This record gives sequence, C-alpha cells and structure tokens, in this order.
Amino acid sequence: MHQNVYDNNEFFYEYKKLRETDDNYNDLFEQPAMKTLLPDLTGKSVLDLGCGFGNNCMDFVSHGAGSVIGVDISENMLALAQMKNSNSKIRYIHMDMADTSRLEYKFDFVYSSLAFHYVEDFEKLMQDIYKLLNSGGELLFSQEHPIVTCSLNDSNHYNYDDCGRYESYSMSHYAKTGLRRGRWFVDNVENYHRTFSDIINGIVQAGLHIVNVTEPLPSEAALQKRGGLIKEFIKPSFLIVKAKKYE
Amino acid sequence: MHQNVYDNNEFFYEYKKLRETDDNYNDLFEQPAMKTLLPDLTGKSVLDLGCGFGNNCMDFVSHGAGSVIGVDISENMLALAQMKNSNSKIRYIHMDMADTSRLEYKFDFVYSSLAFHYVEDFEKLMQDIYKLLNSGGELLFSQEHPIVTCSLNDSNHYNYDDCGRYESYSMSHYAKTGLRRGRWFVDNVENYHRTFSDIINGIVQAGLHIVNVTEPLPSEAALQKRGGLIKEFIKPSFLIVKAKKYE
Repeated sequence: MHQNVYDNNEFFYEYKKLRETDDNYNDLFEQPAMKTLLPDLTGKSVLDLGCGFGNNCMDFVSHGAGSVIGVDISENMLALAQMKNSNSKIRYIHMDMADTSRLEYKFDFVYSSLAFHYVEDFEKLMQDIYKLLNSGGELLFSQEHPIVTCSLNDSNHYNYDDCGRYESYSMSHYAKTGLRRGRWFVDNVENYHRTFSDIINGIVQAGLHIVNVTEPLPSEAALQKRGGLIKEFIKPSFLIVKAKKYE
Repeated sequence: MHQNVYDNNEFFYEYKKLRETDDNYNDLFEQPAMKTLLPDLTGKSVLDLGCGFGNNCMDFVSHGAGSVIGVDISENMLALAQMKNSNSKIRYIHMDMADTSRLEYKFDFVYSSLAFHYVEDFEKLMQDIYKLLNSGGELLFSQEHPIVTCSLNDSNHYNYDDCGRYESYSMSHYAKTGLRRGRWFVDNVENYHRTFSDIINGIVQAGLHIVNVTEPLPSEAALQKRGGLIKEFIKPSFLIVKAKKYE
C-alpha cells in the first residue's frame, strides 16, 4: 500500500486550508488546463482516481456523466467528499490506486488530477487503466512535472539574481528514478520520480495512444499573486497527458 | 532558409575534428541509442534528414535498405558524404529541411540525427514527413533535449559543490519557445527551443502515433572520459522519438 499522507491529520488540516484559498496551483492553472481537455461526458461512465473531496466527480455529473466512481486512499478525503459532493450518480470507493485492477466495471473516461506521482508502479497502473477502458475510451491525467519531481533534496530550487528577480531553476538526479521524500506541510511526504520518457512509454506500451501533452502555465493574474514571477521564465510544474484506447 | 553554419569554414573544421575523435556525444550515446531503435530496413526506402557526411546513409545500406536519400543544407557536408560514403543506392540532395515537402518520393522510414532543433517550424516538418511516409512507415529522430535548449544564455549551466563535484543543472526560459543563439565553435549558432509538449503534440497532430520516447544516457565508460560525472546525476542531453503512420 502507498503512503496515505492525507489521513495524517496535520497534513490534512493544512491541505484543506490551502485548497480553500484561491491561491493554490490546482485552481490557478492545473484545473483550468484540465477542464479544456475534458471530452464530452454525456451519458459516459467515469472513473476518478485519487478523487479527493469529490469536486471533480460532482463536476462530471454536472457535465452529463451517467455514472461516476471516485476512488481515494484517504478516508479523510472521502468523508469530505460524502459531505460536500454527494450525488445519486456518484459512488466513492476507499482504495489504493495500486489496486485499481480490482474494480469490476468498465469506463468511457478515466480521470486523475495530481495523484499519479504517488504511484510506485506506473506501468502496471497504465495496464490496469487500459483494461478498465471501453474501446474509444480516454484517459486524462495530471501529475507533477519530471523537472519538479527529479531532485533528491527538497530545498528551494529557484535561483535569483542580485536584485532578487527569478533567474533560473536548479534540477538534479533526473535519471535516478523512484521514491522521493520531501516536506509538504509534514516531513517525508512520498512520491515517485519518473522521466518524461518513462511516462510516455508506460502509456504507449500499455496500448494507449497519446492524444495531447500539456505543460500548463499560470495566467499573468495568477503570477502576480505569486510575487510577480514572469511567465516565460518559470519551469513547468505539471504535466498533463490525454490518451485514447482505439481498439 | 535556415542558418547554414556547417558551411562556415571555421565551424566545419572544428566540427569535423570533433566527430573524428572518439569523445563526441554522437558516438558516445546518441548513436548507440538510435541504433537500438532502428526498424528492419530490408528493402526499405529511407530518407535521412540532415544526413551530414552520410555515415548513417551508408549504415542503412549495409542494413539492407533498398534506396536511401540523404538531405543536407550544407555543401561542405555533402562533399564529404560523396567522398566518404558514396553508394549506388544512396542519393544526396542539397536542400534545407524546411523544403522537405518538395521531395517527390515516398518513404518507408524517415530518420534524422540531431538536426530537428535547427528547424523553426516543427509542426510543418511533421506534416511534411507524414505526407512522405508510406502507410506503416516510421519516423525516428533525435534532437537536443528541451532542458538543454531552453535557457537563453549559453554559459555553463552545471553547478558544482565545494569539492568540485557536479551537483545540479540550472535551466530557465523553458516556456519561452523559439530561436536561441549560442556559441558552439563560432558565435551565434542558431537553434530552436521547443517544450516536450510542443514536440509530442506536433507529431501527434500531424497524424503520427508515438511508439517510443528515449532520453539516452552515456555509459559508465563514456562518463569516465568526461571527468567522472555520475550517470544518475546528469541531465538528459538528447530526446529521441520513434513514431509511426498507421493509416
């Protein structure tokens, strides 16, 4: 079983607080980019892997989805989902994503927002998703960008010039894939670094076809909130991939 | 027309000298990785874009290719190709890759080694290649990695610790795509930065399907020659993509 940091109460309290502000990366630029890539969901069966507090599950229903299953490893998150985003078309299941193959349903659309970097065996996950998808079905996911996940130490990687302006970003250990432990609200939050090629090859080798890759950037307004970073200078924080099962 | 730096005699002299050593990145790890990705070439028609001095064209013939066209913008390079790698199955054509659509042939395999980063309009190039490929045909190319092409200044981006050991790599301007000018033997050598997603989307939107992405690393022996860099620490220098036309 993977680490379940969202059921660490100190982490959960801080994470919940962050998501309730309007200054989190999810709302500033990950979610807007994901929404532009959503397929027509009318009547579709949808799986949300790492559904968290169920906001996207509810969004799929409002976009016409016929049925939605939301899976999460965190009981804290699912309790919040049941409270805030309950609907007769949504079923929440408490499950580690590593066990995705246990689901006994087929889906037209598999979605995951910023959760796959918690998964150790990406190739198996892609094979599981391939089996769960109907023909013509699509996968859309976001995860932390390989440029962000690669470095072993979790200090601030931004470099500034003498005037305090952002200058560059330092990265290392790109080729050393696997477990990373870093501080995010609490110590030793675990995620997994994969290279760009590992990610693309994992998808393709499972039998899915790449439809689109996006490295979303914050809007100018969002950057102003973040202390005036200049858009074209910053490193990509997230990687979004859309893939399709043709057969 | 793109810059033709290989016909700058100072550049050409230095480049030729580099390729004649056994300590150049092409021979150390780009070419070994490319060779493992070559399809069966028996009887195939092959196009080599940016063929340089024709060593790969000759290699394709020795692997059974039926016919090979090598295209290069540099007359210096093609003169060397005619001298060193002439064969009845190979035809060398003096042409800018931007004019690829002018070729009046169809191919089973399109190949390009470390040349596409010189091309301004990658999307058009992919559309041109799609049209030139027979059904079932494949494209295999390498180019400089986006992590390498991104930064605007061309100083040394490696960072070292107090003992002089490699520590990290600094990058910037990832999201600012387009022309870069840097020094490589001579000043103002031009190439073009594209993000990962630009590259993958350019291929996919042209109608090709991604088969494999590789970020090759040097062998331990190659690293020793380069002053004992540690393999897992270094940034990727090249991006290799294999794609297929199914229709």
